[in-house]
Amino acid sequence: MRCIIEPREMQVWSTQKRCQGKTLALVPTMGYFHEGHLALMRWAREHCDVLMVSLFVNPTQFAPHEDLKAYPRDLPRDAELAREQGVDVLFTPTPESMFSKDHAAWVEAPSLCRGLCAVQRPTHFRGVATVVAKLFLLTSPTLAVFGEKDWQQLAVIRTMARDLNMPVEIIGRPIVREADGLAMSSRNIYLSPEERAQAPFIHQGLQQIRGLTEQGETDANILLAALGEMYQRTMPLAAVEYMSLVDPEQLFPLEEIQGPALLAVAVRFKTARLIDNILIPVEERL
Amino acid sequence: MRCIIEPREMQVWSTQKRCQGKTLALVPTMGYFHEGHLALMRWAREHCDVLMVSLFVNPTQFAPHEDLKAYPRDLPRDAELAREQGVDVLFTPTPESMFSKDHAAWVEAPSLCRGLCAVQRPTHFRGVATVVAKLFLLTSPTLAVFGEKDWQQLAVIRTMARDLNMPVEIIGRPIVREADGLAMSSRNIYLSPEERAQAPFIHQGLQQIRGLTEQGETDANILLAALGEMYQRTMPLAAVEYMSLVDPEQLFPLEEIQGPALLAVAVRFKTARLIDNILIPVEERL
Repeated sequence: MRCIIEPREMQVWSTQKRCQGKTLALVPTMGYFHEGHLALMRWAREHCDVLMVSLFVNPTQFAPHEDLKAYPRDLPRDAELAREQGVDVLFTPTPESMFSKDHAAWVEAPSLCRGLCAVQRPTHFRGVATVVAKLFLLTSPTLAVFGEKDWQQLAVIRTMARDLNMPVEIIGRPIVREADGLAMSSRNIYLSPEERAQAPFIHQGLQQIRGLTEQGETDANILLAALGEMYQRTMPLAAVEYMSLVDPEQLFPLEEIQGPALLAVAVRFKTARLIDNILIPVEERL
Repeated sequence: MRCIIEPREMQVWSTQKRCQGKTLALVPTMGYFHEGHLALMRWAREHCDVLMVSLFVNPTQFAPHEDLKAYPRDLPRDAELAREQGVDVLFTPTPESMFSKDHAAWVEAPSLCRGLCAVQRPTHFRGVATVVAKLFLLTSPTLAVFGEKDWQQLAVIRTMARDLNMPVEIIGRPIVREADGLAMSSRNIYLSPEERAQAPFIHQGLQQIRGLTEQGETDANILLAALGEMYQRTMPLAAVEYMSLVDPEQLFPLEEIQGPALLAVAVRFKTARLIDNILIPVEERL
C-alpha cells in the first residue's frame, strides 16, 4: 500500500492511472475506521482496479463549537486496517495543504440544506461538498463510495457530481450496524455505558415507524409524533434534535407518504450527537 | 474545426486528448465575437496543442431583469471567425444540457463578491463560477484564457481553480480596445451614437487617475472624487454604478494606495452597462 501526503502527487498519480484506462475507486473518510468504513472498502475493492482511501479530518465541516479537536484519530491502526482491505493508496493530506489561509471558493447545494442536519450545522455541508470536490479533483475517481448513514451528505454529493459534470459515479452503501442495531460511527466511542445502552433504540424506533407505514399509516405528523413518544420513553438520556420525513432525493419535507420516503433523525446524548435513517420504500406500503 | 454540442461527447473527447499528453487550451465565451475574443484565441493557439472555444450564453449569470434574451447572438459568423483563428473544437452546448430544471449545486467565492459588480449583480458570479467549473470538467483544459476586462470574474475563477485543486492554469490577457480607447464588449452594439461618442471617456478617466497616482497621490477618496467629477463632466448620458480602488487579488477596498491596486468602474448608459478597469502597479508610483 502506497501512502501519499502531497495533494499534487496524488493528482499526478491518479491522473496517470485513469489515463491508463484503469477504473479508480475512492472511499473518502475522516479515519478512525470501524466496520462501516471497511465494508465500503471491501465493496469498492471488488468494483475497481485501483482502490484509494482518503483520510482527512476536514476542518471546514466542523463549526467552531464542534468536536474537531476531539475527533478520534489513530493513523497507524487505520493504515493497517486499510492495508488488510487491499487498499492501493492511502491519501492523508495535511489541513494546511488542503485549505490555504485565504481559502475562498466553496461548493454549495442550498436547496438540499434547508432541513435535517443543516439546521443545527448550517456550514457543515458547504465544508463537506467543498472537500469532496477537492478530493475528486485530486484522485480522479471513476466511482466514489459513501455510507448511507450520512444520507443528506450523500444527496449533496450526488447532486454536486451531477450538476458540475464530475466524471464520477456516486455509490451509496447500506448502513452497517452493531449487533444491537446501533449505526456504526466513529463518535460512538464518546458514549457513556448508560448512553450506549439506550442508543440502539434510535434504530428500533425507526423500524417501528416503518412498521406503522407498512400497516397503512401515511400521515407524517402521526408517524413523527409516535416516534417522538417512543424516543422519550426509551431514551431518557437523549434529546431529539430532529425527526423528519423527507423526499429521499431532494430532501423536502413530506406531509403525507405517497412515494418513497426517508425517515431521518438526529439525537443528542450528553457526549455525542448521533444520526440515523431508514428508507420507506413504495413497495412495502402497497 | 469540429463542432460539439453534447456535454458528454465533449468530456470524452477532451479527456482522451489530455490522456494522450496533449496540452489543451479553453477560451470560454458567450459568443458574438469581437477582437477581444479573437485575441484570446490567437494567444491560446500559440500556447497549446488543442484549442477549444466554448460558446454558451449562460442563463445562470443573468438576473431575471437583465439582458439574457436580448444578448447578441450570431453563431454562423462566430463559427467562421473561430475557424479562421485555428480553433480545433467549438463547443456549443444547449442551456437544457448544461442546467437541469432541478440544478442545485453552485460554486461561490463570497469573500470576492462583496463589492464591484457583485453589488448590483448579487447572483452573477455564482452563475459564472458554476458554469466555468462545469466547462473545466467537460473540457479538461491545461490552460484557460480570460480577458482582464472582467477582472472580478477572473479573480473568482483563479480562486476557484486554486481552492478546488482544478488542474488548469488560468491566464488573464489584457483588455482589447477600440482605437478611441473604449474596451471591446459584445454589449457595445447596444449604444446609441451619442452614447458611443461619450463611452471612450470611461478609459480616459481611468488613465488620468493613474496619472495622478504617478504624480504621488495615494488617497483613494481624492482619486475617486476626481474620477467622479471627470465622468460627470465628460459623460452626461451615463450614470456611474461604482468606482472602486481595490486589492487586485482579494478585491477588498483600499483607502490608501500602498501596493498594486486596481481601479475598476461600471457605468450605465440608457441602453448598456459597461465595465472597465486599469491596474495601478507599484513601480509607477516609486
